Amino acid sequence: MKELILAHDIGTTGNKATLYDPEGELLASSFSPYPTYYPEVNWAEQNPEDWWVAVCSSTVELLKRAKISPDKIACISFSGQMMGCLPVDKKGIPLRRAIIWADQRGENQARIFRDKIEEKEVYRITGHRISSTYSACKIMWVRENEPDVFKNTFKILHAKDYIIFKLTGKMLTDYSDASGMNLFDLKRKTWSEAILKATKIPQEILPEPHSSLEVAGELTFRSAKEMKLLPGIPVVIGGGDGPCASVGAGVVDEGDCYNYLGSSSWIAITSREPVYDTNMRTFTFHHVAPDKFMPAGTMQTAGGSYQWLKENICKLETKIAKEVDIDPYKILDLKVNSSSPGSNNLLFLPYLMGERSPHWNPKARGAFIGLTITHKREDIIRSVLEGVAFNLKIILDILKRQVPLGHEMRVIGGLARSLTFCQILSDVYNKKISRPHLVEEATSLGAAITGGVAVGVFKNLGVAKELVKLKVTNEPRPECREKYDNLYRVFKKAYSALSPIYEELADIR
Amino acid sequence: MKELILAHDIGTTGNKATLYDPEGELLASSFSPYPTYYPEVNWAEQNPEDWWVAVCSSTVELLKRAKISPDKIACISFSGQMMGCLPVDKKGIPLRRAIIWADQRGENQARIFRDKIEEKEVYRITGHRISSTYSACKIMWVRENEPDVFKNTFKILHAKDYIIFKLTGKMLTDYSDASGMNLFDLKRKTWSEAILKATKIPQEILPEPHSSLEVAGELTFRSAKEMKLLPGIPVVIGGGDGPCASVGAGVVDEGDCYNYLGSSSWIAITSREPVYDTNMRTFTFHHVAPDKFMPAGTMQTAGGSYQWLKENICKLETKIAKEVDIDPYKILDLKVNSSSPGSNNLLFLPYLMGERSPHWNPKARGAFIGLTITHKREDIIRSVLEGVAFNLKIILDILKRQVPLGHEMRVIGGLARSLTFCQILSDVYNKKISRPHLVEEATSLGAAITGGVAVGVFKNLGVAKELVKLKVTNEPRPECREKYDNLYRVFKKAYSALSPIYEELADIR
Repeated sequence: MKELILAHDIGTTGNKATLYDPEGELLASSFSPYPTYYPEVNWAEQNPEDWWVAVCSSTVELLKRAKISPDKIACISFSGQMMGCLPVDKKGIPLRRAIIWADQRGENQARIFRDKIEEKEVYRITGHRISSTYSACKIMWVRENEPDVFKNTFKILHAKDYIIFKLTGKMLTDYSDASGMNLFDLKRKTWSEAILKATKIPQEILPEPHSSLEVAGELTFRSAKEMKLLPGIPVVIGGGDGPCASVGAGVVDEGDCYNYLGSSSWIAITSREPVYDTNMRTFTFHHVAPDKFMPAGTMQTAGGSYQWLKENICKLETKIAKEVDIDPYKILDLKVNSSSPGSNNLLFLPYLMGERSPHWNPKARGAFIGLTITHKREDIIRSVLEGVAFNLKIILDILKRQVPLGHEMRVIGGLARSLTFCQILSDVYNKKISRPHLVEEATSLGAAITGGVAVGVFKNLGVAKELVKLKVTNEPRPECREKYDNLYRVFKKAYSALSPIYEELADIR
Repeated sequence: MKELILAHDIGTTGNKATLYDPEGELLASSFSPYPTYYPEVNWAEQNPEDWWVAVCSSTVELLKRAKISPDKIACISFSGQMMGCLPVDKKGIPLRRAIIWADQRGENQARIFRDKIEEKEVYRITGHRISSTYSACKIMWVRENEPDVFKNTFKILHAKDYIIFKLTGKMLTDYSDASGMNLFDLKRKTWSEAILKATKIPQEILPEPHSSLEVAGELTFRSAKEMKLLPGIPVVIGGGDGPCASVGAGVVDEGDCYNYLGSSSWIAITSREPVYDTNMRTFTFHHVAPDKFMPAGTMQTAGGSYQWLKENICKLETKIAKEVDIDPYKILDLKVNSSSPGSNNLLFLPYLMGERSPHWNPKARGAFIGLTITHKREDIIRSVLEGVAFNLKIILDILKRQVPLGHEMRVIGGLARSLTFCQILSDVYNKKISRPHLVEEATSLGAAITGGVAVGVFKNLGVAKELVKLKVTNEPRPECREKYDNLYRVFKKAYSALSPIYEELADIR
């Protein structure tokens, strides 16, 4: 019986192929890495041919590991890195390397964009601020700097869209990926005429947006051969990685929320309407569900802050951990526990790489504030996790002002493995924290569920609630309430107090 | 020939006896420790009998080490901890333990003091703000809380004054120690009638103030026996430890300046007039020289910050240093050198124990500001020394606004051993830094020179310029100028930006 789902997550560091059964059990996975190129500061590119090779090789390896026959596969589905720009010609041949989400070369284009149309209007239409990280500015950059490429551009594709084209010959995209381009009218589910006019981007080069739950086409004979699969397997469009993670975390009903905890971190919710914040501190993507949205806020340096701490301040713990062959973060967590909630009134501002949500300030910087001679190493370590939690709480507060949220926050991503951090999040958010068994598989599971719904293995996305197996929960401790509320208030003021200082520091060469 | 000078420095941790020859060479030294008692938070007391035992035992040990005959000693001279309060009866018998400089029990008394007389007026008269750390509030506390002690109090003595009484039977003090009581009219060299009236402290219980250069009396037969010295040796009054250090650093002419670098740190200058700062950020003691003053500012946590860093952040370096048996600070200094001037725009605010000069804010707290993901451990370490230097520069700037200062800054104290730190000070101050051969002997050398001048071994205090042997100098590097000036500007603003945050943090229990 064809009931297994092959999901590909085309990420930033490589492609992860996973195989799920109808109970949502992960049968096998296989990862194929590919490089990112940084030709200039703030540029980031990948070779789409690398994506393709990785998709093929990881599929072959996956089937070998899973020891299943290719005829068991009900569909192939996708999640992928978002906000990119890959120009292809009529034949679907890439005209240059893909400019990926991390690329910010289009700063000038963003300024022009802002000159041509009110940013507030763009925010209202697309759910996003104008930013060089979205596809629009990248397209504008190509037009200005590589006119030959632009002239021959037939379509602009996202990572998963390019692979879907390779598999099916169809050039299209889905609402969620479309919503990461700064060009998509979220509520109308069409390309925004006003923005296309302002940016002079011709609509023809944008792929037609579809529901994530649609089948793009069938696996061609040629691709099937390369992947050692059977031709004719339905290829489901799937969605961007963030929206897929939402499904994979079981966050599919209005008011559900989850928190991705990786090097960066975001809080995202499911809603029937976009969330518009007066100060544009949060943004809204389209959900994988065709009638829902995914309002969210992404902070830049969450796990990244903890990693910086480990590598620069906690050298001793790292060294010892290596000697006794255990994870250094486990030692750090033990230190965190030997401090106390509030880190004895030490605050950490986690703006080590500037900040996106909630401050949108590339000049923001990190800080430890409130140090006294009695602060110990463990207070410093704990304060980093608390600072990340406080910053995320700002995002949470904005979202919950507009959408009533449930008491439960799902956490996914590598840092969700730390129960110590989960307890801090629970105490700071004043929410129950629950964690799927596999914290790093939400994205691929979401892609798999999306695929399964598209081909009828699952009835609808609501099945995610049953399939996601929750492992651990943390409950907020009332005794921490007052302390954290007080520190949170000061944490917010500390950023405002320091923002003129950031300006001045940025000017010092 | 009687030409050797026996100097005692009655410090906080013990008494140091030193023997100097007329060339200013240290022939021998001997240290006898005594305890400090902390009966309550913010209380600090010492037993005057411990001082006496330490003075006697260190003298005996010193003579043994120096292998000289007691008849070579030309005089005994003193430096001592300041700002204390030891009530003695008519016979000079202590009525309680001495309340020492670190004691702040008199906070209520300070409030009453401020109610009775304008603080600005007290600052104008005494050179100091009203503070519980000075003797006046301690005397008021005794009057209020120990009326029996107060009733029997004949005189209030400082540490060195008590020992001088033991040696000579004379109860008196000198201008420099008098100037640390919040009661002394600096310019008139008398007890201030206005302040005595406001505080209701009777003038009779205050010892008569004399020049530091006077001979108090001769060593009595009885004391000579206890110290194994010859009776009749002239006992010179000497001065407080800070003012004596000034002489021992060769800072005796107007515009000379020095920087004591210990756990706390101060910058002090020599001047013909007190320095009055509009915001009372600096203070003025009387100099050992009868016609000069010692305007100064003391920051709370200088070497203390570096020690905190070593113990809490640099555990690895400390561990390694122990393994290879070298001074951990040497390793820290090497790390500092592997960063660069400005620590890549990372600022450290050294207010780990609140701050005295320049901010006089017990709620001030430490901070690292401007952290980025690219900051390394060495930047953190370096920023601590630079933060201390920036803070001291604020004090320096206030002083030099009123007294033209020479290009050279003498540094003394344990932290002056770090050439790395001396170079940072030189670059930040834009001054030549010079360091006596013995960085921790300035106080005792100053006491010795004072004694020598009093008994004619030396012509005048100007001899200090010849006797102080300078070892190393650092010159400011022009290439650091702009960077440090810019960061210094932001450093000052950072404190102002955070001061409301300190207020709020202090209120969180």
